Amino acid sequence: MTKRVFFFGDGKAEGDAKRKDLLGGKGVGLVEMTSLGLPVPPGFTVSTEVCVEYMQKRAVPAEISKEIADALVKVEASVGAKLGDPANPLLVSVRSGARASMPGMMDTILNLGLNDETAAGLAKKTEDERFAYDAYRRFITMYSDVALGLEREPFDQALERVRVRVAGAKGVDAARCNAEELKKKVPDSEIPEGELKKLVVELKALVKQKSGKDFPTDAKAQLQGAIEAVFHSWNNHRAIVYRKMNDIPDSWGTACTVQAMVFGNLGDTSATGVAFTRNPSTGDKKLFGEWLPNAQGEDVVAGIRTPMHIDGAENDTLEKKMPAAYKTLTDICQKLEAHFRDMQDLEFTIQNGKLYMLQCRSGKRTGKAAIKIAVEQFGEKLISREEAVLRVDPQAIDQLLHPALDPKAPIKLLAKGLPASPGAASGHIVFSADEAERRAGQGKPVILVRVETSPEDIHGMKAARGIITARGGMTSHAAVVARGMGKACIAGCSAISVNYANETMTITVYDDAGRPTETVTKKKGDIVTIDGSTGSVFDDAVPTVPASPTPEFTELMTWADAARKMKVRANADTPLDARTARSFGAEGIGLCRTEHMFFEEDRIAAMREMILSDTVEAREKALAKLLPFQREDFIGIFREMRGLPVTIRLLDPPLHEFLPNDKKQIDALSVAMSVSVDKLHARIKELHEFNPMLGHRGCRLAVTYPEIYAMQTRAILEAAAFVSKEGIDVKPEIMIPLAITKEELDRMKDIVERIAADVSKEAKVAYSFGTMIELPRAAIKADELAKTAEFFSFGTNDLTQATLGLSRDDAGKFLPAYVDAGILPKDPFTSIDQPGVGALVRLAVEKGRAARPGIKLGVCGEHGGDPQSIDFFGRVGLDYVSCSPFRVPIARLAAAQVALRSSFE
Amino acid sequence: MTKRVFFFGDGKAEGDAKRKDLLGGKGVGLVEMTSLGLPVPPGFTVSTEVCVEYMQKRAVPAEISKEIADALVKVEASVGAKLGDPANPLLVSVRSGARASMPGMMDTILNLGLNDETAAGLAKKTEDERFAYDAYRRFITMYSDVALGLEREPFDQALERVRVRVAGAKGVDAARCNAEELKKKVPDSEIPEGELKKLVVELKALVKQKSGKDFPTDAKAQLQGAIEAVFHSWNNHRAIVYRKMNDIPDSWGTACTVQAMVFGNLGDTSATGVAFTRNPSTGDKKLFGEWLPNAQGEDVVAGIRTPMHIDGAENDTLEKKMPAAYKTLTDICQKLEAHFRDMQDLEFTIQNGKLYMLQCRSGKRTGKAAIKIAVEQFGEKLISREEAVLRVDPQAIDQLLHPALDPKAPIKLLAKGLPASPGAASGHIVFSADEAERRAGQGKPVILVRVETSPEDIHGMKAARGIITARGGMTSHAAVVARGMGKACIAGCSAISVNYANETMTITVYDDAGRPTETVTKKKGDIVTIDGSTGSVFDDAVPTVPASPTPEFTELMTWADAARKMKVRANADTPLDARTARSFGAEGIGLCRTEHMFFEEDRIAAMREMILSDTVEAREKALAKLLPFQREDFIGIFREMRGLPVTIRLLDPPLHEFLPNDKKQIDALSVAMSVSVDKLHARIKELHEFNPMLGHRGCRLAVTYPEIYAMQTRAILEAAAFVSKEGIDVKPEIMIPLAITKEELDRMKDIVERIAADVSKEAKVAYSFGTMIELPRAAIKADELAKTAEFFSFGTNDLTQATLGLSRDDAGKFLPAYVDAGILPKDPFTSIDQPGVGALVRLAVEKGRAARPGIKLGVCGEHGGDPQSIDFFGRVGLDYVSCSPFRVPIARLAAAQVALRSSFE
Repeated sequence: MTKRVFFFGDGKAEGDAKRKDLLGGKGVGLVEMTSLGLPVPPGFTVSTEVCVEYMQKRAVPAEISKEIADALVKVEASVGAKLGDPANPLLVSVRSGARASMPGMMDTILNLGLNDETAAGLAKKTEDERFAYDAYRRFITMYSDVALGLEREPFDQALERVRVRVAGAKGVDAARCNAEELKKKVPDSEIPEGELKKLVVELKALVKQKSGKDFPTDAKAQLQGAIEAVFHSWNNHRAIVYRKMNDIPDSWGTACTVQAMVFGNLGDTSATGVAFTRNPSTGDKKLFGEWLPNAQGEDVVAGIRTPMHIDGAENDTLEKKMPAAYKTLTDICQKLEAHFRDMQDLEFTIQNGKLYMLQCRSGKRTGKAAIKIAVEQFGEKLISREEAVLRVDPQAIDQLLHPALDPKAPIKLLAKGLPASPGAASGHIVFSADEAERRAGQGKPVILVRVETSPEDIHGMKAARGIITARGGMTSHAAVVARGMGKACIAGCSAISVNYANETMTITVYDDAGRPTETVTKKKGDIVTIDGSTGSVFDDAVPTVPASPTPEFTELMTWADAARKMKVRANADTPLDARTARSFGAEGIGLCRTEHMFFEEDRIAAMREMILSDTVEAREKALAKLLPFQREDFIGIFREMRGLPVTIRLLDPPLHEFLPNDKKQIDALSVAMSVSVDKLHARIKELHEFNPMLGHRGCRLAVTYPEIYAMQTRAILEAAAFVSKEGIDVKPEIMIPLAITKEELDRMKDIVERIAADVSKEAKVAYSFGTMIELPRAAIKADELAKTAEFFSFGTNDLTQATLGLSRDDAGKFLPAYVDAGILPKDPFTSIDQPGVGALVRLAVEKGRAARPGIKLGVCGEHGGDPQSIDFFGRVGLDYVSCSPFRVPIARLAAAQVALRSSFE
Repeated sequence: MTKRVFFFGDGKAEGDAKRKDLLGGKGVGLVEMTSLGLPVPPGFTVSTEVCVEYMQKRAVPAEISKEIADALVKVEASVGAKLGDPANPLLVSVRSGARASMPGMMDTILNLGLNDETAAGLAKKTEDERFAYDAYRRFITMYSDVALGLEREPFDQALERVRVRVAGAKGVDAARCNAEELKKKVPDSEIPEGELKKLVVELKALVKQKSGKDFPTDAKAQLQGAIEAVFHSWNNHRAIVYRKMNDIPDSWGTACTVQAMVFGNLGDTSATGVAFTRNPSTGDKKLFGEWLPNAQGEDVVAGIRTPMHIDGAENDTLEKKMPAAYKTLTDICQKLEAHFRDMQDLEFTIQNGKLYMLQCRSGKRTGKAAIKIAVEQFGEKLISREEAVLRVDPQAIDQLLHPALDPKAPIKLLAKGLPASPGAASGHIVFSADEAERRAGQGKPVILVRVETSPEDIHGMKAARGIITARGGMTSHAAVVARGMGKACIAGCSAISVNYANETMTITVYDDAGRPTETVTKKKGDIVTIDGSTGSVFDDAVPTVPASPTPEFTELMTWADAARKMKVRANADTPLDARTARSFGAEGIGLCRTEHMFFEEDRIAAMREMILSDTVEAREKALAKLLPFQREDFIGIFREMRGLPVTIRLLDPPLHEFLPNDKKQIDALSVAMSVSVDKLHARIKELHEFNPMLGHRGCRLAVTYPEIYAMQTRAILEAAAFVSKEGIDVKPEIMIPLAITKEELDRMKDIVERIAADVSKEAKVAYSFGTMIELPRAAIKADELAKTAEFFSFGTNDLTQATLGLSRDDAGKFLPAYVDAGILPKDPFTSIDQPGVGALVRLAVEKGRAARPGIKLGVCGEHGGDPQSIDFFGRVGLDYVSCSPFRVPIARLAAAQVALRSSFE
């Protein structure tokens, strides 16, 4: 039988302070602080194992109650008071504390141990009747809510009625105040003891009325109920949601800490406060915190009284008002940082001039602060370089790379969508790409609003500051392209209904509870602000602050680059993308999509001519027109990427994507190409597909029309030859999409080699030939494909779609429900589905390496920029990940972390 | 060094007669016949290994030439003549013979050994100058074509010019004849020796002119060239195509047999013929064949002279004309059947009254004959029951189960499409389901012609005799439903263009070479005939013969049932289907699709009401209307299937499939349901999916709308309870479609168990709960799914689509090209892709069994009726296959064969 109740107090603590899994974060903090000899009120922690057992059995086993009773005796001895002793009552707090921090998610009960007798005893002992009955009424309310499960509202109303009475006595017209105003006019401290005593009687009657039972007067029974309530709160709704959002397993359970109360509300020599050992927002190495004299902890966050700074220029700092306690606190901060080797988040209470520590934990911080703290702590020799690299959440550094909303600006939230591409932007809304381009050309900032975007909107997206789409998921066209451009984008914002004809959008605004409150219509030219990092659309212009990579960021990235094993490349389709990618540290292009190159106005015509041709000759003629464009594109990209590999994927999308689909455009095309509208319709109908995702695309196009890949290969190799002659080192990697058989690759290789032989008559160019692995069969037959392919690039977007049978264009309708319900732990298009899709990646890695040792393996799906996925890719041993340029730093850091973690394992 | 040249002759043969892989079919036949002491001209076979070597090195190695020379000496000794000896020339034939029969696919050279000197010698020896020079000119032509690779046309033209001259001499006006008519008017036998001698000179000059070299006069060099030509012919285009069609590996190579010539064209005591030891069409145990006096083998098949029967009532039978040779032949037939224990296909030549055997091999036969022969040969104790079962190609018995075209009727082919559902049918064409029903109601046979069908056409398909669609593949809606109904269907008949407005179809008619020859327009009411077994559409009514299961068929199926290990179930959605399935021997229903039940007129309204409802309550109200219908359906099915398991798949298709998509229907629905057209359009738009295959369907529907599955479960269990009360044993198996996680199954099981608990208050019903495995992730996580699922049914259609990233609705545009080019060996929707999809099936079987020993495993995709796939399923150890009712006998036989083959391994 393992120990399950752990005492701490008087400078000694039971249990292994490393066992955060058993003691929870709060428990471990208290154990560590106690062992360090810091002033911590004594108490004990009931382990998470008991919570797990409680969840199964719906009761705390008797043998554990015995352990609890023993621990309580030690607390009583330490304090010199007894739980339930009217003469000298011990009061305790009962709090939850999980392995991972879940602030505010679970329930807490303070002042436990009060009943009519002990309340009287407390009043006598503290010589403060008001204090004692204030504590008592607080306790009844909290306990009734948390442990008895009674509705909180009537308890709060009873207090409000008291406040109204007191207000009347003060001459305040309570009828003209709302509850918040009333609280400010009649703060708790002004409610006289007589009223509090009456309130206690009323509250107890309320308990009897609502529950049919008397409020429990036995202090030990109170304790038992409170501990069970804490365990129970592990499964309350907001805790479940929080865990899901933060990837915390439901199975962990929470620990429960019972601790002797200390009081910050015993008069002007008492106080309470919270502090960070460094500034959690900027990372500055300076104590940062707030305090309130004569207050309990909850008052600091309640917002009725404005807390004061702990130090600084003001006159009401803790430093100036209580210098001794301040000195103790700063000493403690130093000790704790030295001990925990990380920035700490603290709670303290000063009771009659003596400072007590109630909590310490690693403090949450912004990305910017995380980097600064990690780099400076290395400088202070607190942590190693490797630890510094591991301290920063890769996702968090995204903030540094994009403009953000000014946190001080007032905002009105209109709608929430998916945070498809980070960054903040304000602008005039427009509903077409052309209009976006026109207005941007006039120097106006615009936000492009579309139901969804298609490749024909690219020029508008380029021109816009930000993009909103009403439909589409995290990997919709808009999302992918916007991330590639580093532009703010909100996708799938279903509260918005777009009317193209009127050039308006109508937004249903919801309150926090998800109820629609109003309908707002915005017309072309109106200004909105979007925050792509959170998916929020705000009314009007909200000031933004620009991206700000700090010197510490640059330093940390150098360390990360030294630590990582995987290379990081970028997905880039244009010379401009390529330059951006290089500036963010990309070590090559992992995916250059050639089809985006065909959508520009002067090219789409030739592309359409090719599609509408009936013979190989006619197609070759049309393709010949595209050749110089493609060659120019590649020349530009090769120049930018000098010395680095460039993986070029040959044409992938189905041909119908290049044809127009509305009547007006078809009519125009008919005139432009001298092809009858009927013929156009017939060809469009012929190319229509029920499931284009699973249709005639990728290398299947080149099986039917080999001349397309022939042209593209020629463009690549001629461009490479041209740039080589400039003395630039060129490393083209020709990549075949959607292959599922070796035979396909063999045919494609034949095309490529034929063209290469032809081009090499002019100038020899080295290139390599490889394939995407983006369908389950490709992964299963990777050993076969590796006989022909010199490299694999996992297209995990498509691989996810096929493996899960989930269209990313359609899944938006039900995938959120799947994630909410825990059927899938995460959106599999955001973070790779490791048990499913990951198993295929792993299989293909093994088979590919077995068939061709040294085969180059990378990933170029959206997952290449997701830290959790990068961790997986590092563990399966890929050679590189490729992601959108703006995520390259994130990927560099994530790749470093997986390398470091692996080296520790 | 293994032996690679095998002599046979004089009653003795070298080599192991069992080594068909080395000697090829023809070689083994000759070895066996020689060893049996039958009259076989001597010769030798060069093994397939030499062919494989030749294909690699492009030459026959010298050491093998030595072996060949040695074997030739033995042949010369046996015959008493020498190759190239002008005084006594030996002539030989050189023929290919692969391990598997590839009739007419590779090249043959006869009369080898002739040059000017030996031709003169042959003339002298046979005292027949005409015969000698006829043989010589034939040899030059054949050798030039096959071994020298010269174009055949000029050689044939030279002969034709001779014929024209001879015709002129006979007074025939050759100018008015085409080539074929001229051949009949001037048969080879009427060309005088003088003309033949001149022709030989002319042909030799032609060789010199075309090849720049003299025709080879050295007989040994001729032989070397001929052998190499035979090996070379293994890779000619038609052979490659044939191998692909018949699943013969390219790597096998062909053997080459060199054999002393015997001549059937030495006068009236000589003859040639072909025979089967039993009737290959009916299976009757009676010699069946044709012969021609004074002719060479090729004349029998050339069609210029009409061959005569070998026996029978006519006066010109071999029996009557050459009774001694006939007696020898019948004796030989008996010996060969006894030896080979199978029906034989023979070639023989009678030279001057003496009969020689040139070939014997197992004869090809119709399905009906195959069954009759196998069953009778068991009766004759020639073969075991197990062998009899293995002798019949399961695919071939399909013929017996459907009406067929009368083979004697004249036909005009209009178009070819996919053979989507077998059987022949004639009828008036109609273009709508309603019209089909109307006309069928008047007792008229109709053929329903649609661009493609949808579930709303079901009533028309039911009413029609056959279905043609212009679009769609082997697993399109039309194909699947027609096979389920056992109705003839041709899908994807792209030569047909349907005009619904005019109620006409226009057919582009192509000739054999694929050139369009004419355009035929057929209007409503015109009659056509279709053969769903071949995909052919014929003009007008062609008489058909009805399906005819024979007593032998019934017998054979009993044996098959005794042999097999896998159960065979049927896919059946209605009581009528269920009855049909049982009548074909189904041992349960493996797939009952519940959605088809919703398309009938009185139900679709409630279904649409459900889809258009905004609240759970409204949906439940609409579903309550469907409940009695569903319950009735299941009651009917359970009654039919008494005692047998019925696997019911809960709703699978996306909801938009139930909404109309044309304006007229939407308007009508708006009126019928009192819902505004705008709202209808909005809902249709909302439900629209880019890739419905990968969309909101299967159990994903029930995650969003659990009430749907709740209603269906209730209908199933209430029906089961009802039928149980009638004393009928009911075995419902509730199957969840499209699951990819255990969590989904757990939720579905919760729904099912909740309803079961409710229904069981009335009457307890046992049921089992399982899932489809139809997405790669389901296969990969089969161990997890098996924790909740009591059975798996592999949905290999969808599994193929997802694994290969191939939409069966769209793949028709490029899949044929893939199969033609050998990129995929077969249409993966017809026969399971064993290396890809099969690997996932195998994985899921292993994981499922590991997690739940005894888990029931079946397959319910279209592959469940494909013999090659069934073989695979048998080898991975599935418990059952399920297929359309009309394929149940095929599956029973195929399942027996895999069991027998496994037991022999």
